[in-house]
Amino acid sequence: MSDVSHDGVRMVALQIDDYGPWTTTPEPRRETDLQALQSRLFATVADFFTQFDGYAFADRYDNMIGVANESDPTAFERLQTQIENQYPVTVSVGVGTAETPRRALEAANSVLQRAGSAQDADRTAVLDHRTVGDAVPGAVTVAHFDVVDATGTLTDQVSSAEAGHTIRRAALDLREQLWERYDAVTQFVGGDNVIAVCPSLTPSTLGEINDHVRESTGVELQVGLGRGPTAHAAGDDAKHALEHCRATGERIHAAFGLVER
Amino acid sequence: MSDVSHDGVRMVALQIDDYGPWTTTPEPRRETDLQALQSRLFATVADFFTQFDGYAFADRYDNMIGVANESDPTAFERLQTQIENQYPVTVSVGVGTAETPRRALEAANSVLQRAGSAQDADRTAVLDHRTVGDAVPGAVTVAHFDVVDATGTLTDQVSSAEAGHTIRRAALDLREQLWERYDAVTQFVGGDNVIAVCPSLTPSTLGEINDHVRESTGVELQVGLGRGPTAHAAGDDAKHALEHCRATGERIHAAFGLVER
Amino acid sequence: MSDVSHDGVRMVALQIDDYGPWTTTPEPRRETDLQALQSRLFATVADFFTQFDGYAFADRYDNMIGVANESDPTAFERLQTQIENQYPVTVSVGVGTAETPRRALEAANSVLQRAGSAQDADRTAVLDHRTVGDAVPGAVTVAHFDVVDATGTLTDQVSSAEAGHTIRRAALDLREQLWERYDAVTQFVGGDNVIAVCPSLTPSTLGEINDHVRESTGVELQVGLGRGPTAHAAGDDAKHALEHCRATGERIHAAFGLVER
Amino acid sequence: MSDVSHDGVRMVALQIDDYGPWTTTPEPRRETDLQALQSRLFATVADFFTQFDGYAFADRYDNMIGVANESDPTAFERLQTQIENQYPVTVSVGVGTAETPRRALEAANSVLQRAGSAQDADRTAVLDHRTVGDAVPGAVTVAHFDVVDATGTLTDQVSSAEAGHTIRRAALDLREQLWERYDAVTQFVGGDNVIAVCPSLTPSTLGEINDHVRESTGVELQVGLGRGPTAHAAGDDAKHALEHCRATGERIHAAFGLVER
Repeated sequence: MSDVSHDGVRMVALQIDDYGPWTTTPEPRRETDLQALQSRLFATVADFFTQFDGYAFADRYDNMIGVANESDPTAFERLQTQIENQYPVTVSVGVGTAETPRRALEAANSVLQRAGSAQDADRTAVLDHRTVGDAVPGAVTVAHFDVVDATGTLTDQVSSAEAGHTIRRAALDLREQLWERYDAVTQFVGGDNVIAVCPSLTPSTLGEINDHVRESTGVELQVGLGRGPTAHAAGDDAKHALEHCRATGERIHAAFGLVER
Repeated sequence: MSDVSHDGVRMVALQIDDYGPWTTTPEPRRETDLQALQSRLFATVADFFTQFDGYAFADRYDNMIGVANESDPTAFERLQTQIENQYPVTVSVGVGTAETPRRALEAANSVLQRAGSAQDADRTAVLDHRTVGDAVPGAVTVAHFDVVDATGTLTDQVSSAEAGHTIRRAALDLREQLWERYDAVTQFVGGDNVIAVCPSLTPSTLGEINDHVRESTGVELQVGLGRGPTAHAAGDDAKHALEHCRATGERIHAAFGLVER
Repeated sequence: MSDVSHDGVRMVALQIDDYGPWTTTPEPRRETDLQALQSRLFATVADFFTQFDGYAFADRYDNMIGVANESDPTAFERLQTQIENQYPVTVSVGVGTAETPRRALEAANSVLQRAGSAQDADRTAVLDHRTVGDAVPGAVTVAHFDVVDATGTLTDQVSSAEAGHTIRRAALDLREQLWERYDAVTQFVGGDNVIAVCPSLTPSTLGEINDHVRESTGVELQVGLGRGPTAHAAGDDAKHALEHCRATGERIHAAFGLVER
Repeated sequence: MSDVSHDGVRMVALQIDDYGPWTTTPEPRRETDLQALQSRLFATVADFFTQFDGYAFADRYDNMIGVANESDPTAFERLQTQIENQYPVTVSVGVGTAETPRRALEAANSVLQRAGSAQDADRTAVLDHRTVGDAVPGAVTVAHFDVVDATGTLTDQVSSAEAGHTIRRAALDLREQLWERYDAVTQFVGGDNVIAVCPSLTPSTLGEINDHVRESTGVELQVGLGRGPTAHAAGDDAKHALEHCRATGERIHAAFGLVER
């Protein structure tokens, strides 16, 4: 598996330019208008990533995240112009390519930070790319987690807020564990679903992570793993692997016949 | 303050019907398509709440939350039909009216849970309302929090993922504190902003909460408070109060000249 | 029928401010971006009109038309702010109330024209209302036309362009006839459907109009008529009446048991 | 110019499956919901075409039209799945490649017609391609028309309905002339703008067409012409050429230094 580890990943950091000040100028704008604006802007971003089989995550809405292994870094100029033509805000885009998702995202973010502050009125629709070392986009590994019997144990049992607390706590623990220990980028994607863009992980590693989440939050997770040339290819395999878990009760399943190494 | 506490609040629980199974039938659907669908569906919901000056929160996307003090519970039938006519999914809506946001949301959720499981294929576009005791919608209190100098201390300093971890951790702590101890419903709304629909809270209470968040997560919050007949009226005042904090360095400011009682 | 004629109608003219110049500044904007922008902006407008059971028509996209009998003229301020918060353009709104749809629309347009040119960079988000005489909104009459067996005679037989020519020619003839002779406002609404907001019309009048269209364009129309306090109430009845035509072969059917007067 | 005429064009016919029946089942659906649905669905289509620098036109909404010279015919499967995942309807797509836009669109439509009726409940998300002769996509010519001083002579002078009548009449005459005599596909695109996808046309031909429109409708048109490998490349040049007309008073201008042949 040593050669696989040389595969790099291309991550994208998207940031609405000068958004905080805009939301309160000249007066604070109506919250529901902002919520709807942010959500539709992210939907536009998500749809854009589909053309090269990428993934996109809403993250904090003013900062969105993408995975774009088969995209040229200059491709995002089209997205930037589209947003400028369809929305009242503009977006800066940093692209980073590195050996792990974490380092790639950090590279993508450093591109934006070097270009100026997120609240710098002069920083508009920046686009740049940074490669860490000699990384080139290769195979991506995606882990798709959900809560074992979430509907039975949470959604139908406790209020949506209680269920939300529990799931968010588990998602946050997962995110921090995977970021700190395994250089993965992990995002809550709705319902009880969490997706991680990972370096290659073994089932035993995932077992340890799930144990940690259960011990610290009481939530039992199951996870499907996929690997492929794009986030969608890997993620689609991961979804099928997760379906296998749901059907069989297995807690960890890899679509690619991963054996312990 | 005793008379204020009689004001009830009307909360809304919106749930996509049978969504989990739909996302994987007949095959798992593409993740970016689902992300875009959920986001636009929520945007439709947010826009709908504007007509009665309500608020809406994306929460977990398959479960959304609204505040609708000046809406008749039957008004959501229009939203349900609109969604049925414009989206590939349907939505059930529970409305709850109670003395505190937490109890109102629990009532709203209990309406949905009594109607059947979220993954019951026969439960489609349910709409019902439950009142706890003799509560009627009255004045709403909204607290709008953000991180002191988030751009300077987080966004421009660490990667978006690191900043996201920190802000999410603070938001989750805030949410749990406010839910458990004060019956408030608290939601992250993008960037470094968190909004809580509260029973009446005093500045000293908010000071204790901000202390708790700082001690457990290291994040320094500031908060504006507003009160009014609708979530928008209260929330707009809260936004102005938060602007006052940003301008003056004050950490807690109430738009309504709240005095310690 | 004399008392019916006292019912007025409230029409709305919506115009994107300074749109032509914006589409070419600083360089011509990409056509697909503009098409998507216009379409979504209209969808926002259409969704807005639903709260008071109104109707909205895309017309020329930069100029849209609404029917809003149960709306207060000031209600459109909320729509204007929503558009300003969610789109890169602003919209001016003229509201007109008069005895016929044509005169109401002309009044609505005169409001905009008095406020300045559509390409005046200083005219932004104007909102005003003009009443002709002492008209007040009353019952609305809606006629919903379509082509007899459009799928069999056009869509499946000729290319979409040919079918489109024929249907557009019929729609334009209908629009001009109804405008010039009966003070109705008529819009193509997709497929082979045309909707007219009418003063009260009798079946024999509609028969003459359909004859005119058939003679000048070769297209055989059928039409359902409805009347009610709002465009939606009237239009929904008209749709049911048109379903009756489709089922029975009748060419003109009124939902309200209209007798010749 | 003989070699230019060998360039083929790839046109796309998009048709909502079984849409008419769906809009009235089980009861007629609310008109504003349908208007908003159609408009957003078209916006999704328009955004999709941008990735290969194509053009899209709303046409009759249930039948949309695209130009996709640099797209593989199988690329539309992604659009079909996206629509299925995000909308309550599905779309069939016919792709046609031929020497002229008209013949290419007819080929695209014949693909759909052979697959079954537009109202055949069993025909769902068909995708196929037909090439006429040995045409391959080459250079596209786009003509972008607008009305000379539309704002001054129409928008600010007469009601929006009157201006709309006049512009629509001119657009329809243009469309029919260009279709019948020159095999062009012509669409109204909002405001006073009309775009034609043409075989190569000379300025003197365009002069004759503009004369015809002026004589039959009284509308004075100006037109910019562009040619390039994609609809966007050609259309963007045409927009610049039209700007040249607006600036100089010239009535016909070609971006590519077209000489009379």
